[in-house]
Amino acid sequence: MTPLALTMGEPAGIGPDLILQLYADRQALGLPVFAVYGHAGFLAARAERLGLAVEIKAIAPDETAAAFGTGLPVIDIEGDVGDTPGEPDPNTAPVTVGAIAQAVEAVQAGLFGGVVTAPIHKASLYGAGFEYPGHTEFLAALCAEGDTHPLPVMMLAHDDLRTVPLTIHIPLAEVPGQITHGLILETIRIIARDLSARFGISNPKIGVAGLNPHAGEDGMIGHEEIETIIPALATLRQQGIDVFGPLSADTLFYPPHWRSYDCVVAMYHDQALIPIKTLAFDAGVNVTLGLPIVRTSPDHGTAFSLAGTGKASPNSMLAAIRLADRIS
Amino acid sequence: MTPLALTMGEPAGIGPDLILQLYADRQALGLPVFAVYGHAGFLAARAERLGLAVEIKAIAPDETAAAFGTGLPVIDIEGDVGDTPGEPDPNTAPVTVGAIAQAVEAVQAGLFGGVVTAPIHKASLYGAGFEYPGHTEFLAALCAEGDTHPLPVMMLAHDDLRTVPLTIHIPLAEVPGQITHGLILETIRIIARDLSARFGISNPKIGVAGLNPHAGEDGMIGHEEIETIIPALATLRQQGIDVFGPLSADTLFYPPHWRSYDCVVAMYHDQALIPIKTLAFDAGVNVTLGLPIVRTSPDHGTAFSLAGTGKASPNSMLAAIRLADRIS
Repeated sequence: MTPLALTMGEPAGIGPDLILQLYADRQALGLPVFAVYGHAGFLAARAERLGLAVEIKAIAPDETAAAFGTGLPVIDIEGDVGDTPGEPDPNTAPVTVGAIAQAVEAVQAGLFGGVVTAPIHKASLYGAGFEYPGHTEFLAALCAEGDTHPLPVMMLAHDDLRTVPLTIHIPLAEVPGQITHGLILETIRIIARDLSARFGISNPKIGVAGLNPHAGEDGMIGHEEIETIIPALATLRQQGIDVFGPLSADTLFYPPHWRSYDCVVAMYHDQALIPIKTLAFDAGVNVTLGLPIVRTSPDHGTAFSLAGTGKASPNSMLAAIRLADRIS
Repeated sequence: MTPLALTMGEPAGIGPDLILQLYADRQALGLPVFAVYGHAGFLAARAERLGLAVEIKAIAPDETAAAFGTGLPVIDIEGDVGDTPGEPDPNTAPVTVGAIAQAVEAVQAGLFGGVVTAPIHKASLYGAGFEYPGHTEFLAALCAEGDTHPLPVMMLAHDDLRTVPLTIHIPLAEVPGQITHGLILETIRIIARDLSARFGISNPKIGVAGLNPHAGEDGMIGHEEIETIIPALATLRQQGIDVFGPLSADTLFYPPHWRSYDCVVAMYHDQALIPIKTLAFDAGVNVTLGLPIVRTSPDHGTAFSLAGTGKASPNSMLAAIRLADRIS
């Protein structure tokens, strides 16, 4: 098995805590082999704060498997990182960003099977000149070839329940205008391709939610279904993709209905996030489709108030590691 | 105990089936006493089709309690209703509409403690001149005094999980414009008053979802929270109402969070309906607040394909009857 690369994420957040806790429990949990891209001195200090007897081993990527049994393998990124839980410091941004960039490069070089990213705090990075709207867009840029950026597609997964929001962090008022024929086509083609290539689902069934209540009730409650969604799904069907919809969103996410599709496409953030977090609050995984590399991440943020306490739940990070291992 | 009034709903739908099934099981279920406003001859035919040994007793409202032990008490509404499951007939509209109107009148006269309405099929009623956007608006008109119509507020309930969508059957694109200071104030005042008066919750805690992803992230993802929702909640707090928010909708409906509020106000249809139907697909109840009478209904439609088969789940109708009994 090729090991996984983990990125440390925001040092003032819970990402480092979760990685250290999970490493400490690696045998009981039966974890796959991984290395952390981060700051070795900081990780040693955080481990001590948490009372975890975890030895930090600064290594080169190809030494990961040999080191994993005796200490947490860390690819040490140069820079200054103090152990200040809950107090983000823009001076740590070069390490946080460098860890992501180097991990992606190493995955692309075949040294690791995929990358699991711990949460970042965008405000700290912006102060240090980071120019991307989020983690995922940065990864897409790192994977770009020339001027061609891949379209990253965020899928949220919990066991066999999977959903993709077509639009993400935009105001609700802008959602109807962003739901275009082209976006639906491109996104669903990526989902169908990656469910097949990465998840081994050869002819995936994809359910698509409507934008409006009751999927518009035949045009009685909004026209986006008739004008945009239905024609786009017809095109996809002609191309051999097994799409169903537009379906009334309120009944689509009842688990027995949801599970009858390999993935459900939602039109906007809350339409996808509400059902997954209602059912699997701290155990959902974010999987980025559409990239040439495997990337997963936990479905939560930096949780500053819990950093350094040892009280944050590692469930979502654990699920992210397991899923990256399974699909890589 | 004052008995309940049930309305028969659309004759071609599952409403009559559910009422007959529940009446047949009344002893095992420990049901409260009720009468049905509907068509006695049709109900006898549907009972026979379903193979239910239910005697239909055409009675006057004040004979309900005496009749209930020996047969299903029916206040017979004049008109023609054939037993045609799945095939709605506009000629039955006068009975469907008359049943609702007479039931509401009898509740207002104190003959019944509340009304439980079975689902209607609006298209059949429109063909017969019915002029309301839905069931609830018709009930509000029936309860009007002079030119003053009460504002009906739809609450969805499942055990101790309750939610109210601020806007309902409108296109998503119209939602942001409909979220006004006045609508938030009026709706939440009604919720606070009725949770206290009908549910015995003396100082209810009301959580309010944001409109945008992450409740707008301090204006980074939309401005409606800052411009409209936050000021409205401040006004309500000054008036002594215990409101919290705007809260990020994606994590609000995780049951332990949801349950920490006596009711959660959502901004639009799917934001409220997705979580309740994801958790309680066929057991949610629709309660209309803001009316001078108690009214509940099941959280599903006419389900034409199941009518006359005996296969429809009575769970939501049962929960609607129990809740009407409890709050009346």
